[in-house]
Amino acid sequence: MQIWQYIITLCNVKIDCTTNMTQKAIILLSGGLDSATTLAIAKEQKFQMVTLSFDYGQRHRIELDRAREISKLLGALEHKVVNIDLRQFGGSALTDSMDVPVHRSDSEMSGEIPITYVPARNTIFLSYALALAEVRQAHDIFIGVTAVDYSGYPDCRPEYIIAYEKMANLATKAGVEGEKRLKIHTPLIDLTKARIIQKGLQLGVDYGLTHSCYNPDDKGTACGVCDSCRLRLKGFKEAGVNDPVEYRQV
Amino acid sequence: MQIWQYIITLCNVKIDCTTNMTQKAIILLSGGLDSATTLAIAKEQKFQMVTLSFDYGQRHRIELDRAREISKLLGALEHKVVNIDLRQFGGSALTDSMDVPVHRSDSEMSGEIPITYVPARNTIFLSYALALAEVRQAHDIFIGVTAVDYSGYPDCRPEYIIAYEKMANLATKAGVEGEKRLKIHTPLIDLTKARIIQKGLQLGVDYGLTHSCYNPDDKGTACGVCDSCRLRLKGFKEAGVNDPVEYRQV
Repeated sequence: MQIWQYIITLCNVKIDCTTNMTQKAIILLSGGLDSATTLAIAKEQKFQMVTLSFDYGQRHRIELDRAREISKLLGALEHKVVNIDLRQFGGSALTDSMDVPVHRSDSEMSGEIPITYVPARNTIFLSYALALAEVRQAHDIFIGVTAVDYSGYPDCRPEYIIAYEKMANLATKAGVEGEKRLKIHTPLIDLTKARIIQKGLQLGVDYGLTHSCYNPDDKGTACGVCDSCRLRLKGFKEAGVNDPVEYRQV
Repeated sequence: MQIWQYIITLCNVKIDCTTNMTQKAIILLSGGLDSATTLAIAKEQKFQMVTLSFDYGQRHRIELDRAREISKLLGALEHKVVNIDLRQFGGSALTDSMDVPVHRSDSEMSGEIPITYVPARNTIFLSYALALAEVRQAHDIFIGVTAVDYSGYPDCRPEYIIAYEKMANLATKAGVEGEKRLKIHTPLIDLTKARIIQKGLQLGVDYGLTHSCYNPDDKGTACGVCDSCRLRLKGFKEAGVNDPVEYRQV
């Protein structure tokens, strides 16, 4: 074998190793700021990305449109949208016809569980991600929960995620057959909204595409006053950058 | 107050206490032998029963019809059917167009995970039950899994159920607010199919209404040779009673 052939062989081996090392991951993507940043982090970690969104009777479809655009822009292999209808159960302002609360005080926002809570939502979302992970032979699931700017949702806490991962490893073939363990990645869990935004900007996330508002108008323009808009605006302010999305009132 | 008035007052107090003690429970009901027995056990334990079935793209709708009939017959308050489409993920003979395996040997049945396994199925089912429990203010979920005549499904094992219950208590408002803990009841988990049948017969379950076959004909008649039919027939034989359903071949 000549030297140049040897070098080519070495290069090919390198290429093969790289390809084998690239693993699929399922990324839960709502189309909001947190999940778009989570997707960019999964990309930075060289995962082959399969994104998963839910049509759960949310009152505004713009989230799903944005999720599709963000998925495409960041190079996901596949974007799945699963229809789940939580409306028939009732119990949340995001899927019912109750009014979305606006202008709650900060103490209200940090304390009680808000009525925008959707029962067992993250548990249902993660369970579909688990099913998709098993079928696509992925061992990694990313979810953009954060426990810092904690808005009162019980299923965003680290102890919940740890318990979910343990259960998931007992639920699946991998858990029985002693194969590679499933891991739930929560790269934002210790970050403030401001740090999430800074991290996303470093990774080139276009936050103009993301949608966070609970109460947009017909054109998808954010209200600027719901809990989600307020948390987002506070984050941009603390990060020292302008939020590129338009608001009806701030 | 006269004596007779005193007695009536006492009786009323007793009636009120009994009413308050009656709790709602969510019962997962497929329309099969195990879940029908589980529902009868929840009834025996004086729960107000809310039954939950899934239209998950199973190839035969007879299961759902039977679930509705059994629900009504046993006096459930409500029967919910949730549409979930696992077919779009692929990965199972029960929802895909793959052939359902027949005439596997007993060693095959007790060992490997069968291709009739639906990825993360019980995890998804329990997650919807959890959402419904929260909205209906129920703290009890019944699921008819059994780990004895173990057919190789990882999400039927006791350690899985324990991990799920732990996660569920961290996922919900109850877990945060220190209210009553959610309990997942698995009354069949230590029972053989024969014992399940004997228990159900004591409770008056009409097994003629239940449907277990993976591969029924157009009229809903069971095949008698798929894994599920074979387990059922073996159970009836060991219980020393006749299975009231019709079979195409046994």
